[in-house]
Amino acid sequence: MIKKVLVANRGEIAVRIIRACKEMDIETVAVYSEADKTALHVQLADEAYCIGPTTSKDSYLNTANIISLAKLTDCDAIHPGYGFLAENADFADMCEDCHLTFIGPSADAISKMGTKDVARETMREAGVPVVPGSRGIVPDEDIAVETAESIGYPVIIKATAGGGGKGIRVAKNVEELKKGYRITRQEAATAFGNPGVYLEKFIEDFRHVEIQVLGDKHGNVIHLGERDCSIQRRLQKLLEETPSPAIDSEMREEMGQAAVTAAKAVQYSGAGTVEFIYDHINRQFYFMEMNTRIQVEHPVTEMVTGIDLIKEQILVASGQELTIRQEDVQMNGWAIECRINAENPEKKFMPSAGKVDMYLPPGGFGVRVDSAVYTGYAIPPFYDSMVAKLIVHAPTREEAIKKMKRALDEFVVKGIDTTIPFHLKLLNHDVFVSGDFNTKFLETYDVMNS
Amino acid sequence: MIKKVLVANRGEIAVRIIRACKEMDIETVAVYSEADKTALHVQLADEAYCIGPTTSKDSYLNTANIISLAKLTDCDAIHPGYGFLAENADFADMCEDCHLTFIGPSADAISKMGTKDVARETMREAGVPVVPGSRGIVPDEDIAVETAESIGYPVIIKATAGGGGKGIRVAKNVEELKKGYRITRQEAATAFGNPGVYLEKFIEDFRHVEIQVLGDKHGNVIHLGERDCSIQRRLQKLLEETPSPAIDSEMREEMGQAAVTAAKAVQYSGAGTVEFIYDHINRQFYFMEMNTRIQVEHPVTEMVTGIDLIKEQILVASGQELTIRQEDVQMNGWAIECRINAENPEKKFMPSAGKVDMYLPPGGFGVRVDSAVYTGYAIPPFYDSMVAKLIVHAPTREEAIKKMKRALDEFVVKGIDTTIPFHLKLLNHDVFVSGDFNTKFLETYDVMNS
Repeated sequence: MIKKVLVANRGEIAVRIIRACKEMDIETVAVYSEADKTALHVQLADEAYCIGPTTSKDSYLNTANIISLAKLTDCDAIHPGYGFLAENADFADMCEDCHLTFIGPSADAISKMGTKDVARETMREAGVPVVPGSRGIVPDEDIAVETAESIGYPVIIKATAGGGGKGIRVAKNVEELKKGYRITRQEAATAFGNPGVYLEKFIEDFRHVEIQVLGDKHGNVIHLGERDCSIQRRLQKLLEETPSPAIDSEMREEMGQAAVTAAKAVQYSGAGTVEFIYDHINRQFYFMEMNTRIQVEHPVTEMVTGIDLIKEQILVASGQELTIRQEDVQMNGWAIECRINAENPEKKFMPSAGKVDMYLPPGGFGVRVDSAVYTGYAIPPFYDSMVAKLIVHAPTREEAIKKMKRALDEFVVKGIDTTIPFHLKLLNHDVFVSGDFNTKFLETYDVMNS
Repeated sequence: MIKKVLVANRGEIAVRIIRACKEMDIETVAVYSEADKTALHVQLADEAYCIGPTTSKDSYLNTANIISLAKLTDCDAIHPGYGFLAENADFADMCEDCHLTFIGPSADAISKMGTKDVARETMREAGVPVVPGSRGIVPDEDIAVETAESIGYPVIIKATAGGGGKGIRVAKNVEELKKGYRITRQEAATAFGNPGVYLEKFIEDFRHVEIQVLGDKHGNVIHLGERDCSIQRRLQKLLEETPSPAIDSEMREEMGQAAVTAAKAVQYSGAGTVEFIYDHINRQFYFMEMNTRIQVEHPVTEMVTGIDLIKEQILVASGQELTIRQEDVQMNGWAIECRINAENPEKKFMPSAGKVDMYLPPGGFGVRVDSAVYTGYAIPPFYDSMVAKLIVHAPTREEAIKKMKRALDEFVVKGIDTTIPFHLKLLNHDVFVSGDFNTKFLETYDVMNS
């Protein structure tokens, strides 16, 4: 069993991991950049060490310093959280070479899922539905035209090394395709060092539905139901919920099985998320990508299943077999998460880092707050803009929405702007309340002026 | 359905009630004394009015002001919380006379349960086990001696109008009985204006186990399992948990049924608690008293059952039938509550009211905080010393204990002394961890020096 963990992250996820470790009697070592001396994760860990200057590259991404520190402090494992080194296959490899347990899947699984065209082919071979498109990289313009005609316009041109909304272009006809193919390859070569692109049918009206999976090192994989993350602004998720208002138990079972198949295809161990494009009109789903790490929105799944995903990650990384069987997983009630960011929703979500003069999170029944902020803390402008994840749990969606509004109403964050007013507007929006929307919700409706 | 509620209380329970009302789209009116201008419940309610000076008698117990205000602000109901007017049958009557819904049981049920010897006789007649003892008030010394001999020493002499550990005396033999009978009567006459005393067998080794009940105005009563409140200091509960480590499902069913019988015997509606003396050696339980109101420790029951007790109180007070059937009630996992008070456990729990320079409650999975404190708030010395109720929920008792220790560890309250160090010592105490203890635990073990 793992005895001491280095937490290679910051902010709320570092706090989240430290909390789980404490509850498991596992010692923790925090790392921090020079900008994070006063951070909460530094105060909560058993030990804390500065690993470099403010720039992430030199601190939270400084693999040499992190691994040396883990060895020096007698850690036997490293938890990467999300972001930073979480999906870095080389880092997972380095950990193994240094006899440190990387709390996550194997380097091979990370790498297979991290390269988009490889992941697509792996899924196709495993029988997981993928969006109709090219077989792997499209080598030249003629084959691009041929492929696009066979799948039908509009198509989407994607850089295999892209991600987060970058290296993507839509083409509605052959002219747009030819131009897009050329430009996307050029951009991808410059931005990612890899010009490879592939084609997919462009599905416009869909929901983002993802399945949480949990695997061990003995070949067992289960799923813990879905999360609906269709509320996005420029591909950034702002609110997540489970169950999805668009999924019934039959579809859940089908997508869950597909996600388990996807995870098994790469011998996945640990917590992971298989993201699907869900065409809710035609009740079809397609593999989008797999995130081979814990996700920001994992708490909603914890609330409805009662399963602590970080503890499970640690247990399976220690080599334990999963003790939860698929038939034991029950989803109780409804959970919603709002990501409260230090941004001004009145001014195009302009970042608003700075000193928090007063911080009082909401409390009471069914309210969970995951945060690393406190009264007097100055949110540094160098990393993400997260203030808190506010999660509620109630018997029904209607009650969860009311609880979230109550909790947002009483959340006090003074000194900086936050997205709380946006979330309140969103939760009062008729279309959101109806549950019937797609990923274009925030493009379609001007929530702040509704 | 109730539309607007006056919350006739302060502190965390006023906040708790306001939260439930907001989630039910019910408007709220807060009341406050001159000492409570900056209190959180005042800030969270839709409206707030000062109802009198600092002294409780003139503010939170000022029935005339409270009822006038409720009428003036168009409230249709009053929630009394716990303490203050919660078990005042006259107040419940006044509300009814003024066409205000008292959110609680009928004045008759309050009154029958509020007078100890009447409650005892009512329970005996209903077939609820009571501690062997006298039939009602003991009229003279001879009958006292006769009764004591028939039930066997030691016996306990109790003033019928007493409570909270006052007007109680133990007698081990006839001499102590005669003296105790005389003195207890004199004291009761002076302290409570009623010299009536009764006798009970003195049970020394017992656990305090209570059953949460919920009744409606249509005769339906269900129970929501037990709470174990054996960790007490001078009859003040400091930690409560559910389930009880001493109760199995058979005993839960038996006590639950007895509690339902007790509630039905007084046509009980709303949330109530039937407290039992549980002789865990002989697996016998006896009715102690019924609290005809919501209790401080109600959240542990909410955590394991998923049922919001304040919402249920409001629904049944509105005349709705209970929608939860007994067979639907499920207890999931383990919940523990620690009452964090502004007291110094190193100095005999000396009160430590004053300004809170920094307040940061713990967060994360399975952690709930019910509190009315914030950074910069000055806890007034005039009322109770509650800082926060910290509640955790986990699959097992062992995990709940670990989660509570983690949460206590990260709870920041600066500027005043709190009982957090006491709770940490208690949760690390082998005997507490074993689950095998009685109500004398804190007399028996010097927890602070363990």
